[in-house]
Amino acid sequence: MAPLDTPLAELSWRERGYEIIFEADTPAGKWFDIGLLAAILLSVLVVMLESVEGFRTRYGGALVAAEWFFTLLFTVEYVLRLICAPRPGRYAVSFFGIIDLLAILPTYFMVLLPGAQRLTVIRALRLLRAFRIFKLAHMLSEATALREAIWATRSKITVFLAFVVIVVVIFGSAMHLIEGPENGFTSIPQSMYWAIVTMTTVGYGDIAPQTPLGKALAATIMILGYSVIIIPTGIVTAELTGGVREPLSTHVCSGCMAEGHDTDARHCKHCGKLLRGLR
Amino acid sequence: MAPLDTPLAELSWRERGYEIIFEADTPAGKWFDIGLLAAILLSVLVVMLESVEGFRTRYGGALVAAEWFFTLLFTVEYVLRLICAPRPGRYAVSFFGIIDLLAILPTYFMVLLPGAQRLTVIRALRLLRAFRIFKLAHMLSEATALREAIWATRSKITVFLAFVVIVVVIFGSAMHLIEGPENGFTSIPQSMYWAIVTMTTVGYGDIAPQTPLGKALAATIMILGYSVIIIPTGIVTAELTGGVREPLSTHVCSGCMAEGHDTDARHCKHCGKLLRGLR
Amino acid sequence: MAPLDTPLAELSWRERGYEIIFEADTPAGKWFDIGLLAAILLSVLVVMLESVEGFRTRYGGALVAAEWFFTLLFTVEYVLRLICAPRPGRYAVSFFGIIDLLAILPTYFMVLLPGAQRLTVIRALRLLRAFRIFKLAHMLSEATALREAIWATRSKITVFLAFVVIVVVIFGSAMHLIEGPENGFTSIPQSMYWAIVTMTTVGYGDIAPQTPLGKALAATIMILGYSVIIIPTGIVTAELTGGVREPLSTHVCSGCMAEGHDTDARHCKHCGKLLRGLR
Amino acid sequence: MAPLDTPLAELSWRERGYEIIFEADTPAGKWFDIGLLAAILLSVLVVMLESVEGFRTRYGGALVAAEWFFTLLFTVEYVLRLICAPRPGRYAVSFFGIIDLLAILPTYFMVLLPGAQRLTVIRALRLLRAFRIFKLAHMLSEATALREAIWATRSKITVFLAFVVIVVVIFGSAMHLIEGPENGFTSIPQSMYWAIVTMTTVGYGDIAPQTPLGKALAATIMILGYSVIIIPTGIVTAELTGGVREPLSTHVCSGCMAEGHDTDARHCKHCGKLLRGLR
Repeated sequence: MAPLDTPLAELSWRERGYEIIFEADTPAGKWFDIGLLAAILLSVLVVMLESVEGFRTRYGGALVAAEWFFTLLFTVEYVLRLICAPRPGRYAVSFFGIIDLLAILPTYFMVLLPGAQRLTVIRALRLLRAFRIFKLAHMLSEATALREAIWATRSKITVFLAFVVIVVVIFGSAMHLIEGPENGFTSIPQSMYWAIVTMTTVGYGDIAPQTPLGKALAATIMILGYSVIIIPTGIVTAELTGGVREPLSTHVCSGCMAEGHDTDARHCKHCGKLLRGLR
Repeated sequence: MAPLDTPLAELSWRERGYEIIFEADTPAGKWFDIGLLAAILLSVLVVMLESVEGFRTRYGGALVAAEWFFTLLFTVEYVLRLICAPRPGRYAVSFFGIIDLLAILPTYFMVLLPGAQRLTVIRALRLLRAFRIFKLAHMLSEATALREAIWATRSKITVFLAFVVIVVVIFGSAMHLIEGPENGFTSIPQSMYWAIVTMTTVGYGDIAPQTPLGKALAATIMILGYSVIIIPTGIVTAELTGGVREPLSTHVCSGCMAEGHDTDARHCKHCGKLLRGLR
Repeated sequence: MAPLDTPLAELSWRERGYEIIFEADTPAGKWFDIGLLAAILLSVLVVMLESVEGFRTRYGGALVAAEWFFTLLFTVEYVLRLICAPRPGRYAVSFFGIIDLLAILPTYFMVLLPGAQRLTVIRALRLLRAFRIFKLAHMLSEATALREAIWATRSKITVFLAFVVIVVVIFGSAMHLIEGPENGFTSIPQSMYWAIVTMTTVGYGDIAPQTPLGKALAATIMILGYSVIIIPTGIVTAELTGGVREPLSTHVCSGCMAEGHDTDARHCKHCGKLLRGLR
Repeated sequence: MAPLDTPLAELSWRERGYEIIFEADTPAGKWFDIGLLAAILLSVLVVMLESVEGFRTRYGGALVAAEWFFTLLFTVEYVLRLICAPRPGRYAVSFFGIIDLLAILPTYFMVLLPGAQRLTVIRALRLLRAFRIFKLAHMLSEATALREAIWATRSKITVFLAFVVIVVVIFGSAMHLIEGPENGFTSIPQSMYWAIVTMTTVGYGDIAPQTPLGKALAATIMILGYSVIIIPTGIVTAELTGGVREPLSTHVCSGCMAEGHDTDARHCKHCGKLLRGLR
């Protein structure tokens, strides 16, 4: 790109467009991003209002018009991004490039395929547009910090979730046997759904145990779900704090048979003997 | 204000009033605050009791009388604050000045505008009066610590809440399509309400998925809401623990051999000598 | 008490009784505590079974007999404690002394005052007996650690709970006005009950908002209750970790106007100038 | 086992079998584990589908066939494990050895004892098979970390759970007396079930307090359950962060001037010299 100290006026129109559309360092770029965010939020709002019976009946025409307005606006924006990007192909296949495209396609498909049922399904994808909010510069670093925290703890959370799934499978099967179809536990998947509702402490109450044994088992999974979340919380926090305790050496002193030496210890701290076979 | 070592008796009556009403260091000021707190709690209690059908019917007159008593009491207090404050205008536009005024206005409006419906709406504002509790001196530092913790982590919590909102929008739209109006998911806003009820693990059960696919999606958002809260918990705790504090430099001052300098230090903070070999 | 190295046989019978009943260091004392714990658990179980309709009808006589057996057992134990304690009066007014007495009184009152309704009320107090479990030696240190953690963070948790209460009062009043008695929000206390049920993410669903505005407000208090718990969690954890970050000095260097010096800094770390007006 | 540098081809067929079945270091062993995991998941899926009314009616025959296929597959695997294990007896009585056996037995019992009711009860045990997932090598260390974290904090969590149980017993008994059988609190165990549902913030709503006093007590246990979980979270996190790690001694070795010795160290761990002036 253009060096940072080059005045905006000296850049070509494509470089200027890039500065405005893709970057948020210049005042113009900042205003573009804020305006884009407002447009996305408004267009999401239009989709939401359209789904409400009362609004659709009364303002149906205006909502469709607004939908087309935003679709055309985002189409222009998408084309401009393709033109101004130094590598258009790379932008087109990037995460946000695909989201940008998916955000405008459904409205056009509405014309080609006038199937009301299909149409609404695709419309939901457009809401992913809201993810573009994260492109606003001053929130990006925080989002990155969050994403890194999630990434760093991914395997621990995977194991934790695996534990949750296994508990859900076993308790779900047990409840299917204990309570049975007559109390709402019609199948193992249904009972697993109940186990998830209960273990995550959501507790709809649409399915609830009726027998004493079922209630005892339910109480167990409730207390499990209530308290077990502190384990991953502790692990994630410890990792983020960077205070993970250095493990002790497994060496045993040949002099006094003492264990628990630091990994950097060369002599036994109890009898002073040289520790052999150091790592 | 008057210097701290001046005896209370030597102050002017306005300075004495200030000491008693605004400060909590003197015995008189402490008793004033405790009395005020009791009055606020009692007046809030009166408003609560008035809203209960049974109490309103039986003790209606006494409750209205109590309401007027507290309103007059707080009016006198408000006027005294305006007189004693060294800068009355500044107090009037401060956060607590506005709250103090809003706490007494509704009862007077009740006389001028005898519209029962309006009246009750304004009455709720009076409950903000309870915030004055935080003015009590010995709890202020704790409240400040809490407020600072919230302030320090505001952008992280904002990003986290933005993530929650996006998940709510996408899952809400998806559930509107999957379950449809016949299962209670009448519109996207309604489905988003369900998604918030579910993700925050509240789980009223007034709207609950009925189809297998809807239940699978619901289970996903439940487990997401159950486990994702550990990420901001970890980040906030790490920040509070100081675990993300910038590491100290390993430099030793050549003047006084002191260690523990900040990485951005150019001079020893103990003897002032220039630190050599800076990064 | 008797010195630790004195054999049990050389002690007087009262000293021996003290060793067995109050201490858990000797084998006899350990077995006494384990037996006592079993007796308490069994007696609590008897009270529970007695409250179940089916059990009361069938095994009523046996349950009453068991109740009298445990009451007499605990009476003998209480008298022995009074005899063996070096200062009986001090034991009698101690926390566990009062609990021990309250645990045996209700059954005797049952004879003197044959009022079935009253009786059951007092019976519940007997369940406090379970607190004696904490007297078992090897769990005491853990219980102490928990109690100390609660004590150390008492004022922070108080401020947090005050914040929760204020939110509950304001949201409760607002919901009473918005939803009104026709949707179940019959009074401010009732609406506050709903606010607590919602903010703590319990979510019974017996009272739930029906209007769009009420649902929006409910969603707000849900997200608040879901995310605000991380603040006290962070504060408590930071306190327990002992990692509370030392605050920086508020001094500004008179030489280079730099801020952010450590509180133990005597010289400016940037220009080396002596910092004046040190605390 | 065979030394690590021995080529697979030079091993006996039993040693090769051991490498493939029990270890996951070789490509063959890795593929075996992945295939086994897929088979377990599929067999669990078959059991689940069989419990769904609609699937059982339509694909009953295919599901029974699949069940027999997986049972025979796991039987072959179990026999191979017994043959290849260097100590077959030790494997047979190990945790996974028993799980492996229990995973195949129910289907065979189905033939011998054609009692439909019994049969389904045993079937649930087969789902424990899913625990074998944890045998996959690259997840084992994470699972170990989780298990160690749970083990290290077992006594603290026990005390916390004891506190929860006592609160549940006392609040359950109190609610039984206050609300009574007419509001659903039919017995103390039933009321305790309600207390667990409420304190863990699950909140089904199948039993809910109706009287003002009952609601006040319910609000108390809700706020207790909502906020008390931060205490064990803090303790577990502090332990994982190493914040409760024994402080280091301030002694400096007179031999090599090294610092950072443990408080129980008698000799310098770097040069072996006796540390003087021990506490």
